[in-house]
Formats: sequence, C-alpha cells, structure tokens
Amino acid sequence: MPIIEKYNKRADAVNSLVCVGLDSDFEKIPERFKQMEFPQFEFNKYIIEETNEYAAAYKPNMAFYEARGNKGILELKMTTDYLKEKYPDIFLISDAKRGDIGNTNKGYIDFIFDWLGFDAMTVAPYLGGESLEPFLKREDKGVIVLCRTSNSGAGELQDLIVEGKTIWQIVAEKVKNEWNKNNNCMLVVGATYPEETAKIRNIVGDMTFLMPGIGAQGGEVESAVKAGINSGKKGLIINSSRGIIFSQNPKEEARKLREEINKYR
Amino acid sequence: MPIIEKYNKRADAVNSLVCVGLDSDFEKIPERFKQMEFPQFEFNKYIIEETNEYAAAYKPNMAFYEARGNKGILELKMTTDYLKEKYPDIFLISDAKRGDIGNTNKGYIDFIFDWLGFDAMTVAPYLGGESLEPFLKREDKGVIVLCRTSNSGAGELQDLIVEGKTIWQIVAEKVKNEWNKNNNCMLVVGATYPEETAKIRNIVGDMTFLMPGIGAQGGEVESAVKAGINSGKKGLIINSSRGIIFSQNPKEEARKLREEINKYR
Repeated sequence: MPIIEKYNKRADAVNSLVCVGLDSDFEKIPERFKQMEFPQFEFNKYIIEETNEYAAAYKPNMAFYEARGNKGILELKMTTDYLKEKYPDIFLISDAKRGDIGNTNKGYIDFIFDWLGFDAMTVAPYLGGESLEPFLKREDKGVIVLCRTSNSGAGELQDLIVEGKTIWQIVAEKVKNEWNKNNNCMLVVGATYPEETAKIRNIVGDMTFLMPGIGAQGGEVESAVKAGINSGKKGLIINSSRGIIFSQNPKEEARKLREEINKYR
Repeated sequence: MPIIEKYNKRADAVNSLVCVGLDSDFEKIPERFKQMEFPQFEFNKYIIEETNEYAAAYKPNMAFYEARGNKGILELKMTTDYLKEKYPDIFLISDAKRGDIGNTNKGYIDFIFDWLGFDAMTVAPYLGGESLEPFLKREDKGVIVLCRTSNSGAGELQDLIVEGKTIWQIVAEKVKNEWNKNNNCMLVVGATYPEETAKIRNIVGDMTFLMPGIGAQGGEVESAVKAGINSGKKGLIINSSRGIIFSQNPKEEARKLREEINKYR
C-alpha cells in the first residue's frame, strides 16, 4: 500500500484535509508551559488533544525544535512517540527541507524516518534526483519535494524559465515522470500561489500536495482548494500552524478550517 | 572585520587551506570509540588532536549527528565547545544545507550559529534570497550558498539553461550582486567540477568557495586548486572527510593534503 493511503484513510475517517503545523516556537508558547520540564512536548500534547478529531496530519517543522538543541530534539521525539502510541492513524510529516549528497542523506533518513518515525518528510531538489535516491528508495515513506514554495520571494529561482518552462514546472515533471518510481512522492505547493497550483495539478495528475501558506502567510482556502483538489476530492494536505496552535481556541480553529476546506472540496 | 578574515588568518597561520570534514558516521568509527559514553565526541577529539596543526577549518555535516537523535546533537555540541575552547582560531563550518521560509530559518540560526556556535553554515538557494534574509543579516556569520554541488547528478537542475546561463551561474551572480550586501557570503563549489569552478571564479571575484568532493568523491587537488584559487592565493576551503578521518593516519593524511594543495597554489 502506498504511504499516501495512510493519509487518505485518515482524511476519510475524520472528513478532513487539515494538517496541524506543530511549529511550537518556544518564545511563543504560553507561559504555563514554559515552567514545565518538557515545555514543547507539553504544549504539543495540549494541541494534539485539542485538535486530533479534526487532524488528518501533524507537521512539526524541525527548525523550532533544533532551536533548543538536544533538548528540543528530545521533546520532538517525545511528541512523535506520543502521537504514534495514541493516534497511530494520523499521518506524520517532518518539515525538514533536507537535501545533501546521497551517502549523507542516509543520516537524515536514520533521524527522521527511523528514529523519530515520521511517515514523510520534505526535501529540497537543488542537488537533483540522484542525490535524493536514498529517500526515494524508501517505499514505506513519503518524499515531499519542494516545488512551488509559499514564501513571497519563491519566484526568484523557481520562476526562471528554461525552454518555455518554469523551474517549478520542471521539478513537477521530474517528480511525476522520473523520481516517483516507488509511488511515494508528493510536492510542496504553497497555498499563496493558486495559479501555479492549478498548473502543477495538470502536470502531476492526482499526486498529493502538501500545502503550507494558509492564514498568517496570506493564502486563502477557497482559491487554494479549488486550484489544488484532485479527481478523488483529496490530493491536498492543507497545513495551518500559527493560525491554530497560537490561537485562543485551537480546537475551534481546526474545526473551522476543516469546514471551510470541505465547503470548497 | 568580515567573518572570512577569521578563516584567512588561520589559513595563513598554518599555511593551509585544509578543512577536515568531521563526518563521524557512528557505523564507521573504530570500535574502541563505540564503547565510550560519548563515542562521536571522543572520536572527534582524537581527530582534532591529530589534525589541528594542518587544519584551517573543521566542518561537521549535521546528518551524521542527527542520525543519533538528541545524543548525536549533544556530542556535536561537545565537539564545538571543545574546539572553541581549545582552538578558538580555527574556522567552524556547519554543513547543514538548510533553507526554509524566513521566520522559520530563525530556528536554524538559533541552533547552528548561536547554540552550537558555528562561524558559518551552508544554505540551499531554492526558496530565493528573500527567504535567506535572516541568515544574510548576520554580519558576524558566514552564509555559504549551494552553487555547484559535488555530486554526480548535480547538473540535473543546476545545468538547466536560462537565457544562455546555467542555474549555477545565476546563483553565483545573485550571491555576488544581491545577497552579499553584508560581505558574509561564500559559495559551495564541488572539486569534482573544475571547469565550472573556473567560470564561477570569474563571476564572483575573490569570494571564498567551500570545496567538497576531494578524495572519495573523485575530485583532484591539482585541477580544483588551479581552477579555484583567488587573486590572494586563497579563496578556497578544501574539505576532505573520509580520506582523513577514517584513514590509518589522519595526521599524515591532513599534512599530505596541505602539501599537495600548497604545491598548486
């Protein structure tokens, strides 16, 4: 079974395409957690308990844990252990944007797939498919390739045109036609770029997109869903981080996002 | 004083452009270290004591430490603490190849520049200069942008041609003309590509290159140095990892590499 089926089953079970971004910036978590022995873990546990009934996926960004060195890494491990034990059906994504030469990538695989136990991770394409082979070979894990990122300056390299095609189009084609031999690839496509999203959907068929950029970054649900939804009314993992986890009511924000997405599915 | 002057002073003091890659893969370190409480740190201490008189820089690749989770991260911290205490003049590079959206990159800055205390780190250009601003703003630290990587498949994206220029040429120009406002940028240029190295040298003037790929990856010292040396007979940080640290005699291998480089400077 392709790993994306884990996500699809969960999405059906909770009728939701919501991914909660566990970007648990220590500076921003409420004071009551900062007093605890494992502040990021305790905050995550609170967010998970509030939001799980609406969550098809969770996605911690590694940077917010590495910021605290080995302590943050340990609390991330506690978080993934907690999720795998209590909610084994929820899809777990590491937002890592890693990409090194082949033999070195093995270290990131040991860390992110095997030690932390994530189902999928984001990777950067600049070194080419040959460098990504150690990730791509892992049929049991998802490899989510940066294609069109959500940031305002994404176009500086990604919009360059090679024989009539942008770099993001070329990356989408390579993933579809060459890198996806094991049926384990997905793409990062920012919710902030619905026009590009529609074009990428045309290139890759039903392949799933991890879609950051909703909320704080300015992406709108309606245009993002309409541009990105696939023929099975799924194909999107729509992430919201700050808009849920640092809100007054994370449960209500997660529920509202699910409803808004479902309105346009 | 631009951060590269720290490297240049050390290179002059030991008459060496050698960077020792502390890619201390747990699987490959000798058995006697594996028995110790902090195996990667103890192995690194041994390598540092053997090689420091020939080393202008040390460069651990993060993947080999993250592979062991929070334990590996702690041992990397012990390694950088040891180096900063005992050999404060040696230039410390984190090979991390990070690159996320702006506000997220702050976590990697906290981790790599401020907690681990590295002088410089490698970053990926795919998200564009806007995303790299948090790194580029740090005038006290070096930002080493992936330009032409050393792996055999590097060309898949990097050789694509946009209006007569390759992507690696465009990245070199952007770094030179736009991203280097704080005089803290360098480039990753693989020793395995001397023709490209010479062209990049023409584009960026005397900017320093971090040059991986010597030895196990197939890069040759003579062609790499001749193509890459700058007008001050420096401008190169030539990395060797496996060829030094897993050899029978790391000290002798580091000395030999220094001599061979100096022959062609």
